[in-house]
Amino acid sequence: MQHFLNTQDWSVDGLQHLLAKASEFKANKLGDQLKGRSIALLFFNPSMRTRTSFELGAFQLGAHAVVLQPGKDAWPIEFELGTAMDGDTEEHIIEVAKVLSSYVDMIAVRAFPKFIDWQDDRQDKVLNAFARYATVPVINMETITHPCQELAHILALQEQFATRDLRGKKYVLTWTYHPKALNTAVANSALTIATRMGMDVTLLCPNAQYLLDERYMGWAEDNARAAGGSFTVSHDIERSYAGAHVVYAKSWGALPYFGNWGAEQPMREQYKHFIVDEAKMALTDGGVFSHCLPLRRNIKATDAVMDSPACIAVQEAENRLHVQKAVMDTLINHPEIR
Amino acid sequence: MQHFLNTQDWSVDGLQHLLAKASEFKANKLGDQLKGRSIALLFFNPSMRTRTSFELGAFQLGAHAVVLQPGKDAWPIEFELGTAMDGDTEEHIIEVAKVLSSYVDMIAVRAFPKFIDWQDDRQDKVLNAFARYATVPVINMETITHPCQELAHILALQEQFATRDLRGKKYVLTWTYHPKALNTAVANSALTIATRMGMDVTLLCPNAQYLLDERYMGWAEDNARAAGGSFTVSHDIERSYAGAHVVYAKSWGALPYFGNWGAEQPMREQYKHFIVDEAKMALTDGGVFSHCLPLRRNIKATDAVMDSPACIAVQEAENRLHVQKAVMDTLINHPEIR
Amino acid sequence: MQHFLNTQDWSVDGLQHLLAKASEFKANKLGDQLKGRSIALLFFNPSMRTRTSFELGAFQLGAHAVVLQPGKDAWPIEFELGTAMDGDTEEHIIEVAKVLSSYVDMIAVRAFPKFIDWQDDRQDKVLNAFARYATVPVINMETITHPCQELAHILALQEQFATRDLRGKKYVLTWTYHPKALNTAVANSALTIATRMGMDVTLLCPNAQYLLDERYMGWAEDNARAAGGSFTVSHDIERSYAGAHVVYAKSWGALPYFGNWGAEQPMREQYKHFIVDEAKMALTDGGVFSHCLPLRRNIKATDAVMDSPACIAVQEAENRLHVQKAVMDTLINHPEIR
Repeated sequence: MQHFLNTQDWSVDGLQHLLAKASEFKANKLGDQLKGRSIALLFFNPSMRTRTSFELGAFQLGAHAVVLQPGKDAWPIEFELGTAMDGDTEEHIIEVAKVLSSYVDMIAVRAFPKFIDWQDDRQDKVLNAFARYATVPVINMETITHPCQELAHILALQEQFATRDLRGKKYVLTWTYHPKALNTAVANSALTIATRMGMDVTLLCPNAQYLLDERYMGWAEDNARAAGGSFTVSHDIERSYAGAHVVYAKSWGALPYFGNWGAEQPMREQYKHFIVDEAKMALTDGGVFSHCLPLRRNIKATDAVMDSPACIAVQEAENRLHVQKAVMDTLINHPEIR
Repeated sequence: MQHFLNTQDWSVDGLQHLLAKASEFKANKLGDQLKGRSIALLFFNPSMRTRTSFELGAFQLGAHAVVLQPGKDAWPIEFELGTAMDGDTEEHIIEVAKVLSSYVDMIAVRAFPKFIDWQDDRQDKVLNAFARYATVPVINMETITHPCQELAHILALQEQFATRDLRGKKYVLTWTYHPKALNTAVANSALTIATRMGMDVTLLCPNAQYLLDERYMGWAEDNARAAGGSFTVSHDIERSYAGAHVVYAKSWGALPYFGNWGAEQPMREQYKHFIVDEAKMALTDGGVFSHCLPLRRNIKATDAVMDSPACIAVQEAENRLHVQKAVMDTLINHPEIR
Repeated sequence: MQHFLNTQDWSVDGLQHLLAKASEFKANKLGDQLKGRSIALLFFNPSMRTRTSFELGAFQLGAHAVVLQPGKDAWPIEFELGTAMDGDTEEHIIEVAKVLSSYVDMIAVRAFPKFIDWQDDRQDKVLNAFARYATVPVINMETITHPCQELAHILALQEQFATRDLRGKKYVLTWTYHPKALNTAVANSALTIATRMGMDVTLLCPNAQYLLDERYMGWAEDNARAAGGSFTVSHDIERSYAGAHVVYAKSWGALPYFGNWGAEQPMREQYKHFIVDEAKMALTDGGVFSHCLPLRRNIKATDAVMDSPACIAVQEAENRLHVQKAVMDTLINHPEIR
């Protein structure tokens, strides 16, 4: 039995299998690969794309998705071991995971950080607890990484460049401003998968405070080395955009200020000019732009960029449906692939 | 590609097609007309009948409905163009509509007025934005009109009078009291469709403050003229009920006080006697009574009226299931009909 | 047409039919017994197991479950007759039940007590109103009893002891501490079904304040007499556990303090030692332990008990899926059974 917690746990061949399978599902929507099967979608945080695409993906392959929102329309869950549960939590992850495993064939989990203590959040406790106690495959629907988004993103790039081999492409992950301090999940994921695919990857951010967690910086370095690509950090907007084939934007809060966002806010406010606009895109080598969505227009990217043919964010979002069907099909029907 | 935003956009033949199709679905619940298809149900406001009937209607024809509540279990959406999204909204309608269109075959929207500024609400921005940016058919599940309710209502009358031709029937839309100032959607819709069907329509309301928006008053006049029926406004309860074949009740807030309901409340309180009761129904020509539901008993209509054989509100509610299946089937399989 | 409101309304043969059918569904998950059918799941209170198991059970037999949360994503409902609905409720149970009956083939209801006045709550008004006004079978998903849990519990015992005949087993329902004053539903149900099955049943609770409602105490006495078992009340932990084959734990608030829980709390706090632990389980005759879940670990039962092979709570939870499929199948396809 395999989980789909992070792409880094999977081989490049395994990931390319998922991407190829996703292309097949994009060409042929309906099938019976998951006939009579079921998946529980646990949302500790809200969702539109993720929920819709998983729910429909299951349906289109003959399965049924049950949507649960613990703490809202289900009981709040305890994740610590050995604790006397005299607080707000009514049920322990051990029972939740075992009982759900007795009902469904897969469990998918969205659990954002609590945004209080990064040392705590970086342990990804909720996801890992499900993976530990569930007796069925567990899928990451975004925690501190977002591997389904990674696959959708890479599939869009493969489609765009008409090749499964993305080596040699110049890829820029650019930080952008957002009024709130956001999760680093998609940024961690973008670094991870872009380097994994062997691209020449630049992490563009305002200053060293916006570097990502050492785990993901380390993966990026390891991946670049293994795949024959490169990984660079830059704070220079012009130099980063110059000649880029891919610009991927994401906003996140600076980790040294984690949970103390009031202190980070004044710094963040100084970098609104990181917005992706036409002038910056003009520096690229006819590059494409994408974003995981939701995106605040004219804050992270201008209307002109969003409405340009270079923007493939909607295509990437659509691909969520197809890659997730590939993940579900593979976990159930080809557990030998990883 | 067609939308189903308002009955006024459709021909009478198109509407009669939908009604006839609905009768067929009422006789034969299950089919595969929408096999493998999907519809997103976006609820900006709560629902029971609408959600249940759309969800089941999709299921009974082989499709799947995804229920989304933006702002609750999905991201809040921006509808203004060109704005810098630095407020509460996290995602623009352009992306929402395009991404949903890439997942589903139809999008249905419930979006009540904001009840602040009628000049703003009467533009029906949410629905129209979906219709503009979606690349799949959009269905109105109640905004400032409620066309699905119109079809269910007319189907119940056609069944009751055993004829598809309702011309010559005396139809009274009566305002009733409600402790809150409610949406005019169903009132607008009742006027629109009753005149469209060529009935002799009276709008009975306490005074001129309770007239409906000029758009719908104008449609009613135009429709009556075109169909050979009539349209009258009255503030006289006895005269309005006299000889009626149909009494349809609805409460709404007086538009001149829109968003300033505290000032309207004392006036509204004076008209509690507009309640539909047995004495009033006795004035009709053995008329039927209906209401879109939910209905506050003994406020809008008495128990005696609600529990009488003349009340066809439950039948009308049931018809929601059948007419909505007709709408979905027609939009997908007969896009030439309108 | 039959409802499934309480096991006490059903014959022992009828219940054994449901249990046998559940075993069949456990062996063969998929079927078309409910093809094209539908069930409305009305949750006035949150749920995880119940919702998931009903939703999946419907799906696995070809049906569709619509999940509604009145007052959250549907209108608040009035249950009193003859009232002028000028308060918060927007719709009367009569219309809700009739309209839902026109859409779906079954209605399932979860409605916990309001915890203000037990004399009011013990009338089970919400469930009984649905049963009265619905024209389709109604299923109790937990109100002041929890008959689906009863079946799942008994099926787990039948599996554990490899016999459908549980007579002669010593069964202890033990009260346990919980920081909140909980519903007596599962305790009422455990007494009811354990005595019905002819076991030798002990109700172990701290003192006479924790006795259950006279209706369920009376059923337990009647059932024990009819089935040739026994029913005893005890406040002696050691004596109750001694030689037990089954320990079933549940916490509840003392009924004399109903709605006045602040006054009950100090008393309840004195009985934390009712926790199910290894020392107590060692007194049993190799007995099994179960609980309806959710369970607060190390408050109601220790980790050691929960993680021991004697704990069959997860098995009981899984059985919810199977017994509920048996209930739905029987209500629709074998209405002669009761």
